[in-house]
Amino acid sequence: MMSTSVSRSASLAELAGLVDGELRGPGDLRITGVAALASAEPGQISWLTEARFISRLAQSRAGAALIPASLADSPKPAIVCADVEHALALILGHFAPSLPQPAQGIDARAQVAPDAVLGDGVAIGPFAVIESGAQIGARSIIDAGAYVGAECRIGEDCRLWPYVVVRERCTIGDRVLIHPHAVIGADGFGYYLRAGRHHKIPHLGGVMIGDDVEIGAGACVDRSKTGNTVIETGVKIDNLVQVAHNVVIGAHSVLCAQVGVAGSARLGKYVLLGGHVGIRDNIALGDRVQVAACSCVPQDVDAGVKMAGLPATEFRQYLREHASLRKLPELVAQLRELVRRVEELEAAADNSQDG
Amino acid sequence: MMSTSVSRSASLAELAGLVDGELRGPGDLRITGVAALASAEPGQISWLTEARFISRLAQSRAGAALIPASLADSPKPAIVCADVEHALALILGHFAPSLPQPAQGIDARAQVAPDAVLGDGVAIGPFAVIESGAQIGARSIIDAGAYVGAECRIGEDCRLWPYVVVRERCTIGDRVLIHPHAVIGADGFGYYLRAGRHHKIPHLGGVMIGDDVEIGAGACVDRSKTGNTVIETGVKIDNLVQVAHNVVIGAHSVLCAQVGVAGSARLGKYVLLGGHVGIRDNIALGDRVQVAACSCVPQDVDAGVKMAGLPATEFRQYLREHASLRKLPELVAQLRELVRRVEELEAAADNSQDG
Amino acid sequence: MMSTSVSRSASLAELAGLVDGELRGPGDLRITGVAALASAEPGQISWLTEARFISRLAQSRAGAALIPASLADSPKPAIVCADVEHALALILGHFAPSLPQPAQGIDARAQVAPDAVLGDGVAIGPFAVIESGAQIGARSIIDAGAYVGAECRIGEDCRLWPYVVVRERCTIGDRVLIHPHAVIGADGFGYYLRAGRHHKIPHLGGVMIGDDVEIGAGACVDRSKTGNTVIETGVKIDNLVQVAHNVVIGAHSVLCAQVGVAGSARLGKYVLLGGHVGIRDNIALGDRVQVAACSCVPQDVDAGVKMAGLPATEFRQYLREHASLRKLPELVAQLRELVRRVEELEAAADNSQDG
Repeated sequence: MMSTSVSRSASLAELAGLVDGELRGPGDLRITGVAALASAEPGQISWLTEARFISRLAQSRAGAALIPASLADSPKPAIVCADVEHALALILGHFAPSLPQPAQGIDARAQVAPDAVLGDGVAIGPFAVIESGAQIGARSIIDAGAYVGAECRIGEDCRLWPYVVVRERCTIGDRVLIHPHAVIGADGFGYYLRAGRHHKIPHLGGVMIGDDVEIGAGACVDRSKTGNTVIETGVKIDNLVQVAHNVVIGAHSVLCAQVGVAGSARLGKYVLLGGHVGIRDNIALGDRVQVAACSCVPQDVDAGVKMAGLPATEFRQYLREHASLRKLPELVAQLRELVRRVEELEAAADNSQDG
Repeated sequence: MMSTSVSRSASLAELAGLVDGELRGPGDLRITGVAALASAEPGQISWLTEARFISRLAQSRAGAALIPASLADSPKPAIVCADVEHALALILGHFAPSLPQPAQGIDARAQVAPDAVLGDGVAIGPFAVIESGAQIGARSIIDAGAYVGAECRIGEDCRLWPYVVVRERCTIGDRVLIHPHAVIGADGFGYYLRAGRHHKIPHLGGVMIGDDVEIGAGACVDRSKTGNTVIETGVKIDNLVQVAHNVVIGAHSVLCAQVGVAGSARLGKYVLLGGHVGIRDNIALGDRVQVAACSCVPQDVDAGVKMAGLPATEFRQYLREHASLRKLPELVAQLRELVRRVEELEAAADNSQDG
Repeated sequence: MMSTSVSRSASLAELAGLVDGELRGPGDLRITGVAALASAEPGQISWLTEARFISRLAQSRAGAALIPASLADSPKPAIVCADVEHALALILGHFAPSLPQPAQGIDARAQVAPDAVLGDGVAIGPFAVIESGAQIGARSIIDAGAYVGAECRIGEDCRLWPYVVVRERCTIGDRVLIHPHAVIGADGFGYYLRAGRHHKIPHLGGVMIGDDVEIGAGACVDRSKTGNTVIETGVKIDNLVQVAHNVVIGAHSVLCAQVGVAGSARLGKYVLLGGHVGIRDNIALGDRVQVAACSCVPQDVDAGVKMAGLPATEFRQYLREHASLRKLPELVAQLRELVRRVEELEAAADNSQDG
């Protein structure tokens, strides 16, 4: 049912070739894995992103390291990389065991509607449910217990991890990864109050997710009232994020864990929201807006602006305010002292007038 | 297994009758759907909640619109409504495709205890689990993989979406909707520290949920130590909300996404909590208290008060404080300047005394 | 399939023996349950943690109470306890109905890989999935739909409630409780930007969870890039908490609901994080650090320090700042008044100079 391949060893020269880096040291050095400096073993390669941490490399037990071009000499066999982060990702990819996945085809314990359309090489795990009219693109993996609602369209090379729920009539692009327990297309949270009771507003719309999107475990993207809630291409959403009905998340934006975006908010491209950030309903954030963790944005933000705070304000203003706030208790004391001095001056002035 | 009906077209006159509104324009105009102004097509009806947005209606491609009585003239065929929001909900309901649902009866792949009691017209989806002694009221829908624990009582006309978990001995009223992955009745989070270790406090109680409650995807309502955690009638809870053990949420309250209510807190009726709000354990919020998004309430709040901030304070005080905070850096500069001026006055006074 | 035992009645003398307390009143008084003072019935025992609440005990309908030694006289039959909280936990444990659980062995509707290794007395519920090479220790309970990935090791006497997901190659100690929908070992949230696109960084590592850990409903613990994300022994994690890749949570720490700990943060032992707290990536919190609810910690914190605020600062400083902030609008007015008075003094000084 599942298979896990073992990790592969390589020579340092082979790894240098893999990352298009410059070899420094014995090309035939055998590397069997990758680890951070603090825990690396002699047979493993590690990495150093900044030259100033060179002593950590020297003191480590690592057999070799990926190093930046700025590092003149390395205390260990090394590969000099134009972009250490990129090289590291390639090395991690090399040593990564292949991901377990259900066998191609439909598991005997899955439930797939007769009129569902499955592309070539699709794998459907046990207890998965594919409802009527759903389409699953080629090579996509639907893990154990994942639920694909009626008339959904899932693209190619996607993976829906265990117990992902995609409700009816949602559309998902190619190469989309959705982690366990994420919920796509639940009803938007909308009511109107009439005679003391909240009445539910029907949500006819759906969710449309672009290519190369990743959505974290337990995250929720609600369906829209009409039209679609939209997650554009390349967006990355972390665990436990809430995206409300009718929201638009612009391409290549990144939403860290536990972010909440309220109804009908519109985010531009390459927006970056730190963990726990809240975005008010019906506001617009321009392209490349960045919001610091735990902030709450109550109004429109122009493109490129960095925000922080509760409520969020422009980042340098936020820093100034909080530096002042740190000094506020002292300020209160200063003001009190100043009042006393002014009173003395006033008394003296009165006296001199009297005099 | 699942079925989705197509949406139905109607004449503008029929829709006017449906919402009890006043027809303005050709009654035989054919309407095939509903959409927001920005995306509406000629065959669709849209809506306008405020007269001042009339230019958007004029510029839209919508075939017709729901408009408020305050709008003297409409640039499009229209239905004049006493309450546009209510009319819109009715129109959305008319055009909403019927929700897919499992067939009535018990799916062959569900597991239902022999002594569970199911009302008329109940539908149990594949891989659902109904434990011993559970009761499911008439016409309730238990979707794929939903779990109903031992001795639970679920009312009539409820829907538990896929993978909802309701643990043993919880009670749920009529017409309750619970979205995917919500967890009702997990253990309360309570320990006592003894000899350096946290020991678990048993939670004997349950959860009691009233009629017409809605609970969002991934939300959690923990069971109580003794007695019940209580969600009263008509409460609406959004996605990823946490309601801790022994909490009481008063009738018709609304908790937006990612709210957290700590143990034994008591909320009155018609309380409104914005997204990401935190409520401290063991405090009481009166009826109709409102708390702005991302605020944290550390103490009791009287009925009807609006709160905001971290820690939350009364709303107008919060606005004053934050207006002042915006000016604080400038204030520091002013105070420094004032100190200098007072020093000069003091020096001058000294000189004049000397003189 | 499931069984629930009835609760057992006991005499007051038997309960006094159970909690090693001092009996005050009729030893043969029959007690059938336990309840909080506000709802206790005559046949039930209640508890009083502080002597000053004695009037609530007197006014209650409780048949008896656990009381602290500081209470000289009790208005009801009582058991005097050295530690009421501990005694209460024992009493709750006595009256707790036994938890329903799947029958020992493998449910016919579960899917267990042929090479999975199950200890004595293991119970696997319906629709559970145990992948290839997984090991489950003696007496552990894998509830309905819980998913144990390839090559995972689960210790003895654990319980994975319905739909818990543990992805491949994670390790879990003994007596670990994981509540419904928690996700252990999803991919860490890491990308590098190259040519305008976010590229996924492979996460080769796993998650290592110590003994006696409890993890709440819907909580997420991501797998590490290399090595392990580590939850040490005795840690208690509440619902909807996010623990990112490569984090270390020190032994016996407590994370309340909706906390988020960002990548590679390191928490010491006995750390206490209130609800909704955010911890920045790559920072270190010393042993016994405490952070107030809804705070956001942006930098290292020394052992034993209490923090609060956004951004968090030392707790007494936070209190001072917020007391000052409360007074800030008034301060602005005072400063304005003082400027006016200094201007008068300056004018007078000018006049006297002129004179």
